[in-house]
Amino acid sequence: MRKFQIGVMGSAADLKYAKDAEKAAERLGYLIAKKGGILLFGAEKDYDSLSTAACRGAKKVDGITVGITYGKRKDIVEKDVDVVIPCGLDRGGGREFVLILGCDAVIAISGGSGTLTELAVAYQADIPMVALKGFGGWADKLADTYFDGRNRRKVISASSPEEAVKVAFAEAKKYREKYELA
Amino acid sequence: MRKFQIGVMGSAADLKYAKDAEKAAERLGYLIAKKGGILLFGAEKDYDSLSTAACRGAKKVDGITVGITYGKRKDIVEKDVDVVIPCGLDRGGGREFVLILGCDAVIAISGGSGTLTELAVAYQADIPMVALKGFGGWADKLADTYFDGRNRRKVISASSPEEAVKVAFAEAKKYREKYELA
Amino acid sequence: MRKFQIGVMGSAADLKYAKDAEKAAERLGYLIAKKGGILLFGAEKDYDSLSTAACRGAKKVDGITVGITYGKRKDIVEKDVDVVIPCGLDRGGGREFVLILGCDAVIAISGGSGTLTELAVAYQADIPMVALKGFGGWADKLADTYFDGRNRRKVISASSPEEAVKVAFAEAKKYREKYELA
Amino acid sequence: MRKFQIGVMGSAADLKYAKDAEKAAERLGYLIAKKGGILLFGAEKDYDSLSTAACRGAKKVDGITVGITYGKRKDIVEKDVDVVIPCGLDRGGGREFVLILGCDAVIAISGGSGTLTELAVAYQADIPMVALKGFGGWADKLADTYFDGRNRRKVISASSPEEAVKVAFAEAKKYREKYELA
Repeated sequence: MRKFQIGVMGSAADLKYAKDAEKAAERLGYLIAKKGGILLFGAEKDYDSLSTAACRGAKKVDGITVGITYGKRKDIVEKDVDVVIPCGLDRGGGREFVLILGCDAVIAISGGSGTLTELAVAYQADIPMVALKGFGGWADKLADTYFDGRNRRKVISASSPEEAVKVAFAEAKKYREKYELA
Repeated sequence: MRKFQIGVMGSAADLKYAKDAEKAAERLGYLIAKKGGILLFGAEKDYDSLSTAACRGAKKVDGITVGITYGKRKDIVEKDVDVVIPCGLDRGGGREFVLILGCDAVIAISGGSGTLTELAVAYQADIPMVALKGFGGWADKLADTYFDGRNRRKVISASSPEEAVKVAFAEAKKYREKYELA
Repeated sequence: MRKFQIGVMGSAADLKYAKDAEKAAERLGYLIAKKGGILLFGAEKDYDSLSTAACRGAKKVDGITVGITYGKRKDIVEKDVDVVIPCGLDRGGGREFVLILGCDAVIAISGGSGTLTELAVAYQADIPMVALKGFGGWADKLADTYFDGRNRRKVISASSPEEAVKVAFAEAKKYREKYELA
Repeated sequence: MRKFQIGVMGSAADLKYAKDAEKAAERLGYLIAKKGGILLFGAEKDYDSLSTAACRGAKKVDGITVGITYGKRKDIVEKDVDVVIPCGLDRGGGREFVLILGCDAVIAISGGSGTLTELAVAYQADIPMVALKGFGGWADKLADTYFDGRNRRKVISASSPEEAVKVAFAEAKKYREKYELA
C-alpha cells in the first residue's frame, strides 16, 4: 500500500513562535516518519516555519519529506529534504492549495493566515484536520469546530504530538477508504 | 484610469442564507456598478450564491461583471454576465485565489468556508477587505479583526451596503497607490 | 447572449517582430471588438507583445478587453484596458492556461514558445484555433496541422485578419454549442 | 546533496505507442533510479502512458517516484508509487506546469500534445530537455531545435536510454548550478 501522506502546517518564523511550539512541530514530523508516513510541508524560501521544523524531525529518522514551495525554482531554506515541488503559484492561496491536496490528513499547530488558508482549503476539499492544542494561533481557535453550517468535517483536537499523529493516521486511512484511493 | 475591480464574496446557496442577505448582496453589486466599478464574483456551476446575487444587482444598471469559475469550461449558472474566466483550478483554494487577486478590494457578506478562504487569501495578498455586518457567517466573525499577529490589514466593518461600497472604493484607491498600479 | 471571448496570441517584443505583424495584430483586435467580441490577451509586465497590440486595436472602437497576467498584482504595461486578472501563476504554462480557458476561440499570429504553449493548451482543452499566416513563428508552422494522432482539432489557417476573425467567431459559436455553454 | 529530480514525459496510451517505446520508457525510469535520481512522472487517472511506464522501471530498483496528477484526489492508475501530488489544475497546461517545475531535467520520448506542452513549458522555465529519438512524436520533431528565436535552450537529442539519462543528469547538475539550487 502507498504510504500515507501527512502534512504539518503552522506559523512561519516571522510570527515569532515559542521554542516549545518548534519542538512540538519537530516531534510531529519525527512521529509521522517513524510510523512510516511521508511528510508534506510548506517549504519557504525566506525563513523557517513550524512546517519546516516538522521536516527536520522526520529526517532524524530518515523519513521521506516533500516540500511544496511557490514560484518557479526549488530554492528553499531547508536543505535536508527529499523532494521539492515548486508549483508556480504564489504564496497565499495557490501554493497552499497544492500543498493541501497532497495530504491524506493535516495536522495544524499554532498558525497565522497561511495556516488558516490551509485549513479552510482542507475543509473545502474534505481532507481530515487535526489541531494540536496549546500553542495559540488558528489551530487553537478552530479546534473542535466546523468551518460552516455544512458541518462537513470537524477540526479534531489533540493535546499531544503523539495523540495528533495517531488520530491523523486513523483519519487518513478513513479518508482513503471514503474516496477509494489505493 | 482603469475602473476599480471590486469583489463581493459570500455564502453559496447550500448554506441557506436569508432573503435579506440576498437583497443586501444584490444591492452591493448595484452600488458598485453605479459607482463605475467592475464587479468580480465567484461564478458557480451548480447553484446560486450571494456573490452571484451581486452580479444580478450590477447588471440592473448595466455594470461590467466578471465571473471567475473553476474547471475548464464557462458553464456557469448565471447567464447575464459579461466575462467568464474558468481558471482550471478546483473550487477550494485555487479558484478563490485567482478570484481574489483580481480584486482591488473585497466585500464579504455572511459566508462559509469558501468566503473564509477568500478573506484569508486577501489578507495574505494584502488586498483590502470590508465585512458587511448583520448576516452572520465569517463576515461577522472576522469584522474588525486581523488574521494574525502580523497585523497586516484589518477587516473593516460596515453596517450598510452603502457604507461597505463607499469604504471599498476608498480602500481600493489606496491599494492601487500603495502598489503603484495604474 | 453572452459575448464571444476571443483571444489573440503572438510573439512578445523581445522576439523583435515586424511592424507589419504588429499592425495585423492590432487589426485583429479592432475587428474582434467591432463584431462585438470581448478581447482576451496576455498582459505583460515588462514589454509589449502582439497580444497587447490586439488590445490597443480593440480599444480604438471601445471594445471590452481583458488582460490575463501572471503574478500577484495588476501592474501591466498596457494602461488602456478594462479588466485585469492576475492569476498568481508564473508565465510559462500557468498564466497561459488560464488565458486559454477564458477563450471561445484563439487567433495566433507569429509567436515563440509562449504562443506554442498557448496553442498546445488550446488543443488539449479542445478550444478552436486560427493561425493568421504570413508572419512566421509557430502560427505559420502549425497552420493546417493537428498536434498529434488524436486529430482532435486542426489549426485553421487564415490569410488576412478579416478571414481570421470571421472564422474565429464561427468556430466560437460551434464551440459553445458543442459544450452547451450559454 | 538533494537527489536530482528527473522527469520522463511521453505519449499517453490513447496515442497507441509501440511496445518498443514502452520498453525504452521503462528503461529510462530504471536508469534514473539506478543513478540515484527521483523520478517525476505525469500520473494519469484513466490510462497508461510512457511517463507511467518510466515509474514502473524506477520501482524495479526501488527508486523514489513522484506522480503529479490533476484534479483533487490521488486516484491514479499506477499503484506502485511513492508520492502523489494532485495539483487541482486540469490536465492541459496546468498539471503539466507543476510537473515540469518539479524537474531538474526532462527526458521526452515520442509524445503528443501533452508532451509538447510540457516541453514548451520547460523551455519557458529554462529547464534542460533531452529528446530520446527513434519513436516519432514531438520528441523526434523537436530534437536538436530551439523553440524560438530567443535560442534559450536547445532540445538535446539522444539515441539510447543510456545516453539520454547520462545527458539528463549532467544537464540537471548544470541547471542547479546556474540557479544556485542546493
